[in-house]
Amino acid sequence: MDQDREAGTALNLKFDAAGLVTAVVTDRATGAVLMVAHMDQAAIDATRATGEATFFSRGRGRLWKKGETSGNILRVVEMRVDCDQDAVWMIVDPAGPACHTGATSCFYRRVTDAGLERVA
Amino acid sequence: MDQDREAGTALNLKFDAAGLVTAVVTDRATGAVLMVAHMDQAAIDATRATGEATFFSRGRGRLWKKGETSGNILRVVEMRVDCDQDAVWMIVDPAGPACHTGATSCFYRRVTDAGLERVA
Repeated sequence: MDQDREAGTALNLKFDAAGLVTAVVTDRATGAVLMVAHMDQAAIDATRATGEATFFSRGRGRLWKKGETSGNILRVVEMRVDCDQDAVWMIVDPAGPACHTGATSCFYRRVTDAGLERVA
Repeated sequence: MDQDREAGTALNLKFDAAGLVTAVVTDRATGAVLMVAHMDQAAIDATRATGEATFFSRGRGRLWKKGETSGNILRVVEMRVDCDQDAVWMIVDPAGPACHTGATSCFYRRVTDAGLERVA
C-alpha cells in the first residue's frame, strides 16, 4: 500500500492503465446509488471547476458532462476519495432521472433467486 | 445498448476484458458508501450462496471474502444491478470497519480546494 496515498492530505488519484478512476454517484436526499461511471483527469478537473458531474465516456471515447443533452445534470455537493485513491464518491443533487432509461437510478433492479426484479 | 440487458429480468452481467464487474457497497444503516471493489463470476456466485460479500482481489489475483482475516464481514441485505449490468450495488450490514485502515468507510476523506480533509 502507498502510505502517502492512504494517509495524506493531497489529492493524488491512482488512474488505471486507461487513465481512469471509478466514480460512484449517490443522491444526497435519498442516499441511493444513482450511477457508476469513470473519470479521467479532465473529468475530475471539469467536475471540480463547474460543480457538475462530468465523466469520461468509454463508449464514446470523450469527456461527457452528465445531462449535456438530457438536462439532467448532477450538482456535486461533496466529492470523496477512497483509501487507495482509485475511486471517487460524489454526493449529488440530481436535476432529474440519472439513468438514460428514465429511471431515477441506474440500479432499478434487484437480484433475486429467480432473476431480476424491478424496484425503482 | 443491449435491450435485453437493460429491460430484462435475467441476471446477465457484462464482465469486462478481465472478467470483472464493479461492485459498490453501501451501509444499510447509514447509506454511506463503504467501499468499491470488483467481482468475477465466482465472487458473484459465492456472495449469492453465502450472503456475505466476496470479491475478486486484483492485487492478490484470487477470490477474497471481505473479512476473511479481519472478521469484518459484510452481510448482504440486497444486491442490485445497473442498466447495462456492468456494475452491482450491494446494501450491507457491516460487522465492523470496512476499510483495512480501520476507518468505517474507505471514503474517509473529502476533496476540498486545499486538498483532502478527513471526515470519517
